Amino acid sequence: MKELKSLTALIESFSKLPGIGKRSAEKMAHSILDMDAEDVESFSKSLSEAKSQIHKCPICGMFTEDECCEICTDTKRDSKKMIVVSYPKDVYAFEKLGSYDGKYHVLGGVLSALNGVGLDDLSIAQLLERIKNEGVSEIILATNPTTEGETTALYIAKLLEDLDVNVSRLAYGLPMGGHLEYADALTLSKALEGRKKL
Amino acid sequence: MKELKSLTALIESFSKLPGIGKRSAEKMAHSILDMDAEDVESFSKSLSEAKSQIHKCPICGMFTEDECCEICTDTKRDSKKMIVVSYPKDVYAFEKLGSYDGKYHVLGGVLSALNGVGLDDLSIAQLLERIKNEGVSEIILATNPTTEGETTALYIAKLLEDLDVNVSRLAYGLPMGGHLEYADALTLSKALEGRKKL
Repeated sequence: MKELKSLTALIESFSKLPGIGKRSAEKMAHSILDMDAEDVESFSKSLSEAKSQIHKCPICGMFTEDECCEICTDTKRDSKKMIVVSYPKDVYAFEKLGSYDGKYHVLGGVLSALNGVGLDDLSIAQLLERIKNEGVSEIILATNPTTEGETTALYIAKLLEDLDVNVSRLAYGLPMGGHLEYADALTLSKALEGRKKL
Repeated sequence: MKELKSLTALIESFSKLPGIGKRSAEKMAHSILDMDAEDVESFSKSLSEAKSQIHKCPICGMFTEDECCEICTDTKRDSKKMIVVSYPKDVYAFEKLGSYDGKYHVLGGVLSALNGVGLDDLSIAQLLERIKNEGVSEIILATNPTTEGETTALYIAKLLEDLDVNVSRLAYGLPMGGHLEYADALTLSKALEGRKKL
């Protein structure tokens, strides 16, 4: 049975999404054919529109539909504090807390020899520039607790050593609501190491 | 932090896909923003094109880009045998075997009181019509081995009782390559019930 070209193209498009294998892509493509034509049209439009309307804030690297993002232009925010994250989605995670009133800097990834991501691929130079220009006094390194995230955080901490700025890293330990028995050995040893006096 | 309208619309579009929750939809939408503009454009295009070019074969209900599907128009296929399935994707599953040379009929779903799918929502009348007109002598009911798939198969079998046609159902039993210890009780009892002499 010959393949349907437009269906194959659609399956290929879905396969490019993160964590979507061939079977899932096929399932999604078939579900598209079962949808109302209007829904598919609005799906197609939402793809083009999101891509064309959203770009990275030239200051912090966060997603925005405006010239600069609303966090960078918000004068009520404390520009002395800055959380450094790898990805825009990490900013959403902090913003959901509702308790942080400082600024952000989005690196755009992590240092990774394996994936060929070097210093120039991340907005590290811009970070240093901002620390100087914006009078930042506290930097909170919030890259992911993975090997690559750690390396990136340590590298940036090293770069900031000579600047007059407090540098901290998010705490490691047991996730709230978790169970000791399910914690991996590394997390448990970090939790023990970082124990706090009550 | 206010939401980005075009991003929210994109996340909503992804949420409509089967098995995709809010978190996965967010992940996918963010990955779209990280993609090359060309890839996103071709994704958007593949959605519209697949939906506009592919329709259901008026004879069997299978997906096709032509007037009728290639299986219905293939004169080399044995029109005496017909596999009845619920969905177009099930036809692909049989075609992958490469050993079946008969025709298909796609019902378009399963009878389901819960989801409000009745007789008129499936192409059952067309199936009866085809059996008479095309001189079909063997019907293989290949709906899914679920409660609703079973009900649909039994209902159709009942309808075909008075016609001069052999009706069979796919065999139940242990999946090949599986392990006895992991088989559920129903499958195991079906496998025992349907045991074959060696």
